[in-house]
This record gives sequence, structure tokens and C-alpha cells, in this order.
Amino acid sequence: VTDRPRVRDLGIEIGRLSVGRHNAITDVAGVRVGHTTLVSGEGPLRPGEGPVRTGVTVILPHDGNLFRQKVVGAVHTINGFGKVCGFEEIRELGVIETPIALTNTLNVYRVADALAQAAVRQSPEIGVRTSSVNAVVGETNDGYLNDLQGRHVRQEHVWTALEAASGGPVAEGAVGAGTGTSCFGWKGGIGTASRVWSEGFTVGVLVQTNFGRPENLRVDGVPVGRRISRPEDVHRPAAGESVMVVLATDAPLTSRQLRRLCVRAAAGLARVGSDFGHGSGDFVIAFTTAHRIPHRSLALTTQRAALADEGRAMFWLLPAVAECVEEGVLNSLFRAETVVGRDGHTRHALPAEQVAALVKLDTDSRG
Amino acid sequence: VTDRPRVRDLGIEIGRLSVGRHNAITDVAGVRVGHTTLVSGEGPLRPGEGPVRTGVTVILPHDGNLFRQKVVGAVHTINGFGKVCGFEEIRELGVIETPIALTNTLNVYRVADALAQAAVRQSPEIGVRTSSVNAVVGETNDGYLNDLQGRHVRQEHVWTALEAASGGPVAEGAVGAGTGTSCFGWKGGIGTASRVWSEGFTVGVLVQTNFGRPENLRVDGVPVGRRISRPEDVHRPAAGESVMVVLATDAPLTSRQLRRLCVRAAAGLARVGSDFGHGSGDFVIAFTTAHRIPHRSLALTTQRAALADEGRAMFWLLPAVAECVEEGVLNSLFRAETVVGRDGHTRHALPAEQVAALVKLDTDSRG
Amino acid sequence: VTDRPRVRDLGIEIGRLSVGRHNAITDVAGVRVGHTTLVSGEGPLRPGEGPVRTGVTVILPHDGNLFRQKVVGAVHTINGFGKVCGFEEIRELGVIETPIALTNTLNVYRVADALAQAAVRQSPEIGVRTSSVNAVVGETNDGYLNDLQGRHVRQEHVWTALEAASGGPVAEGAVGAGTGTSCFGWKGGIGTASRVWSEGFTVGVLVQTNFGRPENLRVDGVPVGRRISRPEDVHRPAAGESVMVVLATDAPLTSRQLRRLCVRAAAGLARVGSDFGHGSGDFVIAFTTAHRIPHRSLALTTQRAALADEGRAMFWLLPAVAECVEEGVLNSLFRAETVVGRDGHTRHALPAEQVAALVKLDTDSRG
Amino acid sequence: VTDRPRVRDLGIEIGRLSVGRHNAITDVAGVRVGHTTLVSGEGPLRPGEGPVRTGVTVILPHDGNLFRQKVVGAVHTINGFGKVCGFEEIRELGVIETPIALTNTLNVYRVADALAQAAVRQSPEIGVRTSSVNAVVGETNDGYLNDLQGRHVRQEHVWTALEAASGGPVAEGAVGAGTGTSCFGWKGGIGTASRVWSEGFTVGVLVQTNFGRPENLRVDGVPVGRRISRPEDVHRPAAGESVMVVLATDAPLTSRQLRRLCVRAAAGLARVGSDFGHGSGDFVIAFTTAHRIPHRSLALTTQRAALADEGRAMFWLLPAVAECVEEGVLNSLFRAETVVGRDGHTRHALPAEQVAALVKLDTDSRG
Repeated sequence: VTDRPRVRDLGIEIGRLSVGRHNAITDVAGVRVGHTTLVSGEGPLRPGEGPVRTGVTVILPHDGNLFRQKVVGAVHTINGFGKVCGFEEIRELGVIETPIALTNTLNVYRVADALAQAAVRQSPEIGVRTSSVNAVVGETNDGYLNDLQGRHVRQEHVWTALEAASGGPVAEGAVGAGTGTSCFGWKGGIGTASRVWSEGFTVGVLVQTNFGRPENLRVDGVPVGRRISRPEDVHRPAAGESVMVVLATDAPLTSRQLRRLCVRAAAGLARVGSDFGHGSGDFVIAFTTAHRIPHRSLALTTQRAALADEGRAMFWLLPAVAECVEEGVLNSLFRAETVVGRDGHTRHALPAEQVAALVKLDTDSRG
Repeated sequence: VTDRPRVRDLGIEIGRLSVGRHNAITDVAGVRVGHTTLVSGEGPLRPGEGPVRTGVTVILPHDGNLFRQKVVGAVHTINGFGKVCGFEEIRELGVIETPIALTNTLNVYRVADALAQAAVRQSPEIGVRTSSVNAVVGETNDGYLNDLQGRHVRQEHVWTALEAASGGPVAEGAVGAGTGTSCFGWKGGIGTASRVWSEGFTVGVLVQTNFGRPENLRVDGVPVGRRISRPEDVHRPAAGESVMVVLATDAPLTSRQLRRLCVRAAAGLARVGSDFGHGSGDFVIAFTTAHRIPHRSLALTTQRAALADEGRAMFWLLPAVAECVEEGVLNSLFRAETVVGRDGHTRHALPAEQVAALVKLDTDSRG
Repeated sequence: VTDRPRVRDLGIEIGRLSVGRHNAITDVAGVRVGHTTLVSGEGPLRPGEGPVRTGVTVILPHDGNLFRQKVVGAVHTINGFGKVCGFEEIRELGVIETPIALTNTLNVYRVADALAQAAVRQSPEIGVRTSSVNAVVGETNDGYLNDLQGRHVRQEHVWTALEAASGGPVAEGAVGAGTGTSCFGWKGGIGTASRVWSEGFTVGVLVQTNFGRPENLRVDGVPVGRRISRPEDVHRPAAGESVMVVLATDAPLTSRQLRRLCVRAAAGLARVGSDFGHGSGDFVIAFTTAHRIPHRSLALTTQRAALADEGRAMFWLLPAVAECVEEGVLNSLFRAETVVGRDGHTRHALPAEQVAALVKLDTDSRG
Repeated sequence: VTDRPRVRDLGIEIGRLSVGRHNAITDVAGVRVGHTTLVSGEGPLRPGEGPVRTGVTVILPHDGNLFRQKVVGAVHTINGFGKVCGFEEIRELGVIETPIALTNTLNVYRVADALAQAAVRQSPEIGVRTSSVNAVVGETNDGYLNDLQGRHVRQEHVWTALEAASGGPVAEGAVGAGTGTSCFGWKGGIGTASRVWSEGFTVGVLVQTNFGRPENLRVDGVPVGRRISRPEDVHRPAAGESVMVVLATDAPLTSRQLRRLCVRAAAGLARVGSDFGHGSGDFVIAFTTAHRIPHRSLALTTQRAALADEGRAMFWLLPAVAECVEEGVLNSLFRAETVVGRDGHTRHALPAEQVAALVKLDTDSRG
């Protein structure tokens, strides 16, 4: 989609832990990502019609039937100004039973409906011989570039993303749910990163970035936002600045432990310059691929791998999450191309080379 | 809709507090309720087509523009096995900005989308000059009688309910979101009740009942469920037994205080025989009509009435909620007519006269 | 201590599930209970001196070293008007590492200090080679009968209770932490109950009761409180009406699942007449004896038994909790002798035979 | 106590908002701070005896009777590995009714008992004519330097701190509850900072720092921890790395809004290099001086100033908290002198001039 470099390609290494093969959420074995990107029209906003700069991104924890083989999951709300779906049941039962979809704020209900319908198609017993299905959807507000009222992501777009989902490298920047989002006044979007532990676990993150003021941007601690020129077309919405974080791991965590990982996403966000603004919907959704929880179980109990909170694994996992989130956000910025949207609103691509030079200069001066 | 008596018409008085004029949520001034009831087809289930035994019920806190003039609100999850929409933002901001809609579990996303679209129609600035809108939807699972997969409640049905909403007496039983639900093995549905305080406040409740095992039903403490014959067509789904509770008051509470009221709904539910079953989505949504919170505010601060937790009002409000919920659930049972649905599944009307006689006998024997 | 009958001895069977051998929390294998009861002085209150009507009750999950071999635990707050200690860390880590102590409200800190000191004595590495210890203490307010300001429960009283703890039958009524508490205007105190499942699990409950208005008392659903004469010496404090519930099980639950059990305590409380009053500290603490979690673990992961939420065990466990709590509260009432305390304040023993006759009459009339 | 400079004295300006007169929590009018510092003995640890390197710090929201005139308050747990007291009741009722005390982890119960006794002395009706009192205490683990088992902070030390509390400049570094704590491998302790808004509100923060790995320290974004030599005596406890944050403001917030402020403390912590480690008890306690809530209220309702979440005040308040926390932590480091404790364990003072030079060099190179 883009040939812009990732932050690490420019010599900026976030944190101290080892990265995975693709430095992506897909480094957690079995996890797949799919995007549908919707771009059409230009010129003045015609509410309900266009221009369209939006999309949907789906994350699939495994390639089986998620309703019948659920994954252990958790959610965490840093700032709850948002319209996420599915959180109550994940808190209660500690499982996720659909793919996780990200989209724009007014589209969240249509995308949830599409996920539910996809589940019904795959598991026709839903609503017939068994109960309902809990769709998990997150969102940010891409209304600066996109016609929000049109709710342009329809069922077929969600299904296309599900079918297109794959492992390996993940398209980043202005793609899928990140097509119309903004980050620190620049074009943001989708970013991803991963960390692998020599003793055996992997953590991966995918973010949809739509938050931050230009002056607050920090890259590897360097307050770049104060040094570079502000993007020309900065318009700062009073609300709708948000970020969705999706965490995946193969460590055998409980939902309580996964929630502990979620909390560390806030550290990664703060390090790039967020203070979780009033109007920001900052949500984290996590899952582990270590267990498969059948929808119905005949056995009273099963044996399941468990990981001690006190053991050294948590001392690796928690910082790994913070690093992945920090790098994932930066990748969403470094990789995103300029997008012109409704009313000529423009989100410029971050001047990646200039930023990298500033960070490098800074590093050299310290050395 | 029905001429079946309410529980109080049969001489059974729940609790000790005074009831409002209509003994309904609409006794809280300005609150309106609207239903759309969908009944069509019969015979075998054709997934996605019918038979249809479902609907939608909407509760409007006031007759103005809710997006521009929000109400203070709160939510509470007793058992989170459910697909409610809108909870995270109510927790964060303490306000409700759309009508509250109740429907069936697979229809929740379509109904939320319809609420969002209704808000956009009324407030065209949404998504154009300001942020998104947070739709509030609750649900229970009416799949024993209804074709769930069809998601038969469409935008026009929601809008019809919104337009039809009115104060005064509220239709109860197998109506609106209660068309296809079950309660203690009998036909349940919508119920309502209210309490008024001589010193000036009103509390009203509306419930959508879909929970309970036949043997556990208690009416005014009398374990009726053990004494009457079980309904003939009892089928007990392993999950999907749920209840939605909507609370309204005119007392000037904060969202924290409203949440304290929500917690007392559990007492009312337990007294009729619930133990908040594993598969039950038991959720409470509350609002007060005492304040209107503008979407944007120029003044830094305003003066607002506040009510002391320690004052005697809370000593009236908390029990009032428990009483309203207990009576509201019973009204949903006493008022519901028998419904035959998919595959000939039948939920019989509670034998109200027989039950009342048992309760009366019990009371007399104690006297 | 008392020869007053338990509620079941009088022919009143709460619920439908089978009771354990002792119908006590100690039916969960390995669980022990100890009391220290403090009664001294009479006449007018001399704040800080007496009269003394208080005590401490301790529950030990197993007979090993709890700091080194923790149990999985959970907590739940129904109404947070209380001074419990230790909740934050149990929420975070899902383990309990000291005995659980119950006492009076102003004594909670001294009792926590005594627990911490007992842990240090048993595990001298605390604070030297390893971290701190999280004492778990609950409380209710026995100030109607007792000199609260004196904080009369000292370290030696806690240690005595720990040393005296045993399995088997549990002393109930005006004993230990229940020495000075009140329930529905009568003398309350300590109560316990248990349920056993034919397929293999046990649930046990111990309560410290200090809540309820006389007119609200219900015994097996019968509104006894409206029928019997009010206790002569009723004084209703505006606050300080509380209840502590301790749950034990041997089912291999996670802390999330244990918390689900805790929530069902509210159903038991509501059935005897609670609506979780404003001034009531209504807290639940739960643990399972199924796992032992070492303070330090060398292995990255271990295998641990896990129980499916969707399996039939949860359908037994959740109602079992509600039943145990209902019966435990009633046992605390039926077993407590009259106590005269400060300023001649009197809490009369419940007229158990009269109450039982009313319940029996009621049952017969229905039959 | 120390003549070491604060971070701002060395030309490092954290953030972009204006600081208050003393750049301290006491810039919120009426707020007072008191310390008792306990230093005695040296040489090998004699558990229960010494050496002693600990203390207590108290924060008083106003100079009246806090039990009778409570302040609106909130709490927030970032990572709950800690033994704080008083959180449940603050969550439920949204008020704080004692001074807030900070101390070491094993001393928390004794300090809470001392606060309760101080309240009783000031309000002799507690436990006699009215209910109990909810002591609020936070802690971190100073066991690397201090004899934890001795629990050396006694009632008189708490009372001395209460009596000594004053407005104006606040002693920082190795003082009070910060006497024995560590931060990023250096000597940490107490730090404070404030921000004032031209339109009228003030935010102040006081922290007790005991967290962080040497290599993670960042000063104004500059990764100083990677550049300076590690402190010579680094020993990294596996647990017990914690931070307490106390927030004060005069903005008329509700407890819900105060909690929103608390959440932003995490941003400040992350910016200096925290990722909220597994063993860290990271807690935030906040209050506003804008309201006084009487213990008993005769009026049903009162008028109270309220601040809109959507208004521009929240857009100042939230970043102000993050800035104050970041600067407060740095002040705790910059101001602390070297302390030698038990077993000769040493926490060195941060080489402040060297660090400042690195930050300045970094800043210049960017310019």
C-alpha cells in the first residue's frame, strides 16, 4: 500500500526487547488481520453521501470457528468516551467469540451487526439451539476527513475484510479502520508491533490511532512535536480523539492477567505524548491464543496451563505491551500517506525523515 | 392490549411505599414510553424468516432534543451475559444522550444504528461539526418464541416507537421488547411500577423480563412457584435468561448516586426469585430528569441541585427502587397473555387469579 | 455457647440443594473458623473504656502457611459503606494470603495489624527478603451494644482466635465478631451454612450480620417481620447497618469466577429482607481451596484445573451461594441469645419458636 | 531539610502550563502537608528493631473538622499491588473524611488506626452517636533501607505530623513517608508540583516515589537512565516498587470527574519511565476543596457548583494532572539526599547537575 518506512527502518529502536519476525500482531501464531479500505468522492461534505475516507479492520485470533472455540479475553477502558460493543460480556465471562473489528464511530453498530451475521452464517445454531453472539467492535472518529453520517461500512465490507485476513506483514497507515484517522495533527491510522521473549512468549499489538496534539508528539522520548513545523491543515476537534489498542499473546493468561496487560497500554500511549484527552475513547482489547474454550463443555473441569503473576514472565510481558503500543503508534504515523478528505480537509503524512533526523541528532548528542 | 389485571388490581400490594398515579415509569414527569410489537407467521422456525414474535420498546427521558440536552445517567451490570450498547460512555461521562431502547439480543446493533440515525436526523451537526452519538440499547433473548436470526426490528420500527411514545399508562406484558420473552416459565414481557414520596420525589421502573425458573417464583414472598402446576410447555434455555431494568427519577442525583439506585434493582429481582443465573444478562440503566446537561457549555461552572447521600432522601430512594423492580416484574407476568411462537413453542399466561388466591390465603393465614 | 436451634432444626428448609455435614463453611475441606468473644462491663457507655460487647472471627482457608501457599480469591462490594482492608490487592492478583478476619468497624486496623504481625511471625522473610503482606479484614458496626472507641480487640485476641480455629461445627450467634451486632432489630451475629453437590463440589458461607429493619424480615419468603411484635428495644442507627459474607468452595474457580459467586450473595440477602441500605457496608470475600499458589514460582507455567462457565457446575454453584447466604443469615438470628450492652441497650433474641410456627402455618396453608 | 535544587531550579521546565506560587500541592488554597521523619540506628537489620529509615506524611484538605465537613474525593488504582486503606467507601460515597496519610507498607494499619483515633478525639460523637470513620492511608515499601517488621510509625508520629502540617513550601526528598523509598535505583521520596490556570483553577500533586528501574529514567523525555552510570548500590526488589499520588484541586468536580483526573496520573508516571510494574502498588487519591459536605444534612437538596465535562476546564485539568505528576516525581528525585540504611544498603542521590546537563545538551542540540 505504501513504501513509507516503519519507525525501526529509520534506525529508531523503541525499547529494549526483541521484536518478532514481522514486528506485527501476526507474530502471535495464528493471528490474522484483514482490512477493507473505502475511499471515494472528494470536495464538500454531503452528509450521508460522501466523501468517503473510512474502512474496517478485523483481527482474528485463530482460523477456526471462534463461536465454538472461544479465546480468553479481556478489555480495559482508559477513557470511556466511545461506542465500543461487547465489553460487558467479555468482562463477565472472560472470553471473545467473534473477530475483533475496528471502524469509525457511527459505523460501529453496522459493523457489529455484520459480525453477528457472519457468526450466524458460520454457526447456524446461534439463536436456534443456543444463545446469542457477542460482537466486539471498537471505533474512533474519522469525521475530519470522512462523511460520518453515511455509515459507509456495510456488511459486505466487513465480510470482505474477514475473508481477506491473513498472517504475515500487516498493512499500516491509511488503511482499513485507519483510512480517515489523525494522530498528533498528522495522518495516523493502523500500526502494529510485536515483541518475542527468548523463553518463549510473544506479544503483538495493533492500534487504530486518532489522538494527540501536534506539540505533544514524542518519538523515543524526543519531543519532536515542539521542534518540527506544525502540519499545515491542523484542525483540532473538541472530541473524537481516540485510540483503539488490540493486544494478542500466546502466553497462557487468565482474563484477569490479560487485563493487567491492557493497563500497560496507557504507558505506551503516554510515551508518545497522550494524556488521554477528555474526548478520547481510549480502549484496549486483549486475547490469548493459548486456550480454546468450547461453547459447551461436558467435562466438569479441564486442565489448563496457568502462568504465575509472581513469576518472571509478567516482568517481561508488562513492559513488552508498553513497548509494542509505543512502536505501534509510531508505525501508524510513519507509514501513513497524506490524505485529503471532505471539504478539502487534509492530514499530511508525518515528515518521517526529518523526524528521524531529529531523533538521531538527539541520540548522537547524548552519546 | 390486554385486560389482564396488574398485580395490585388483585389486592397484592408490594412493599410499603406509596405508588404514583399510573404506577408506571411515566409517573416521573416528562418520561415517555413507546412500543413497536412485531407478530407475524407461525409454525416451524425458518431461520432468518420467521415466525416473528419480537419488538422494541423505547424510553424517552424528556421531550426535548436529548443529544443537545442530555440527562444525568448511570448503568450497572449485575450479570454481564448480554450485548448492551452504550455503557462505557455513560460510565465515563455520566450522561445519556439518546432514548433508551430495549429489543432482542441479535437485534441490538440494528436498533442502536436506528437510534444513532434518529439522533442525526434530529441533530444534523452530529458527525459534521461535533462528535458522535452514544446509543443506549438493552436486550434479552426471545429466541424461544421468535426467529432471532432474522433481526426483524428495523429502523422504521424504532422510529415508529419513538414517535408513538407517550406519558400516562404504559402497555405491559407481551408488547414491544417483551413480545417474545419468558419469565419463570410463563409469558413475561414489559412491566412497570412507580413510587412517590410525600416529600417530593418519584421513582419509576420499566423492566423487560426474560428470566427465572418456574419453581423459584415468589409473589410478595409467597413461594408460588412451588405450589402451582408448572406451565405445560416449559423449555429452559441454558442461557439467554435475562432482564433489563430501566430506572427513572426526578431526584437531583449524580451519576454516582444513580448507580447506587441501580444496585438496589438486584434486591427486587431476588425477591421474585432470581439468583442472577449464569446465562442471564441482568443490566440496569438509570437517569434523572432533574438536570439538563447541554452538549456544549460556555460557562465554566453552573449551579446544580445536589442531594446528600446522608440525608433522608436516600433512605426513601433505595427501598423505592427495590419495590418498583419487584412490582414491575410481577406486572410483566400478570399482564402477559399466552403467546405461541416458533415451532409451536408456547409461553402460557400466568394463572393470575390462582396465584393471587394463594398469596391471599397465605396472608390470611398469617393474620 | 448456645442451645438455641438452627433454622433447619425447626423444620424450615431453605432452598432445594443438599446441605453439608455440618451445614457450615467448614464443610469445605480444610477450612477452619476461630472466634474470640469479648464481653465485659455493663451500664453507661464510657467511651474508650466499655462496656465491651465485641470480638473477632477468623476464617482460615487451609492449615498451611497462607503467605507461602496462597489461595485464589475474589472480593465484591454490594454497598461500599465500610472500612474493609485488603480488597485492592485481591482484585489485582486474585489471591488471598492471610486468614480472613471479621471484627467491628473501628477495630479493623488493629486487627489487620495483628494479622500482618502473625504472618511475619510465621514467615519471617516478609519485609526482609520479600515484599509485604496483604491483611484481609471485614467489619460491621456493633456500636449500639459495644464501646466502639475502645477498639478492644487487640493482637492477642486475634492470635487466640487463629490458634483456636477448628473445623467441624461452628459457633453461631452472639460470638466472635458477632458478639455485639444486630439484625432486623433482633440480636444477630455469626451464621453459617453449606451446600454439597452430588457431582462433587461444596460451597460454604459464613456471615456477620448487622443489618435490616424489623418490618422487613422474611423467613423462607414469609414476611415474618410484619407479623411478630417488634423487638422492645429497637433503635435504628442511621448508618452502620452492614453485613460481611465470606464464601468458601473447593471448586477450581478463577478469581473472575469466584467474583461471579460473590455477586449471588446479594440474592440471599435480599430474600431475608435486605435492600442494601445506604449506610450498610455489604461486602463479600470468596476463596477456593482447589489451588495453592506459591509466593514465588520458578516454573513459567503450571497445569491447573479449570471449570467452564458454561458447564453445569456454574448452574449449581450460583444458586448454592444464594441459598447458603439466606440460611446463614437466618442461623445468625435463630442462634443468637439476647445481649444487653452499653447504656442498657438491648438486642433481644429472635422468638425462634414463634417465627417457626408462623412459617410452618404459612406452609401448611399453602399445602 | 535539603538544599538540593528542584528540577525547575535547574532550568528544566516540565510541560507548558503555568506553575503555582510554591509549585506544590499547597498551592491549592487551604491544603496543608505535614511530615514525621524517623531515622535511627545503622548496621545490620535486626528485624523488628532497626535500623529505622521511614516516616509518615499527611495531607489535610482543609483546616476544619474533616469528619464533620468532608471533601468530595475519588480514588483510582493503576496497579493494585498494595495495602491502601479506605478506598471502598470513597468509591461508594465520593467523600474523604480524614486527612490522607502516606507511610510504609507494613505500617499502614497502625497509621490508619492513628488517623481514626485522631478523628475520634476531634469528633467524640464517632462511634457514640454516629457511625464509624473511614481512614485513608497509602503506602509504599521502604524495606530496602528500613526495618519493615518494626512498624515504627506509631500514633504519636502521625499526630505530630498532623499538628505540624502547614501550607507554603513542602519539604521534599528523603522526608516523611519518603524517608526510605527508592526511585529508578536512586533515592526517591516525596515530591510535589502544581499548575494554575489563568481562568481560575489550581491543581496540585504530592507523590511518594518508590518505583522504576535505573535504565528507564526519562527527564523531560530525555532517556537519562541509559546515559548516566547506574547507581552503585542497585538492588532491585522483585516487588514493592510502588508510587502513591495525591491530587488536590479547587475546581468544583464530582467524584466521577475527580476520578477522571486520577486516571491521568498514569501519563505522568509513564513519561518518567514507569510501566506500572507487576509488583507496584500504583494508587491515586484525589479531592477537591470546592465543596464541604456535612456529615449530616437536614436539607433535602443544596445548590452546588458543577463543572461541565465538555467545557474547556477539563481540557486544562487533565493535562495539568499529567504535568504535575511528572514534575512531582522528578522533584522527589532531584531533592533527595543519599541515604544509607539497613545492612549498609545505600540509595544514592541522583547526580542532579549531571542529569540536568544531559537534558540541556539534548535540548540545545535540537534547537
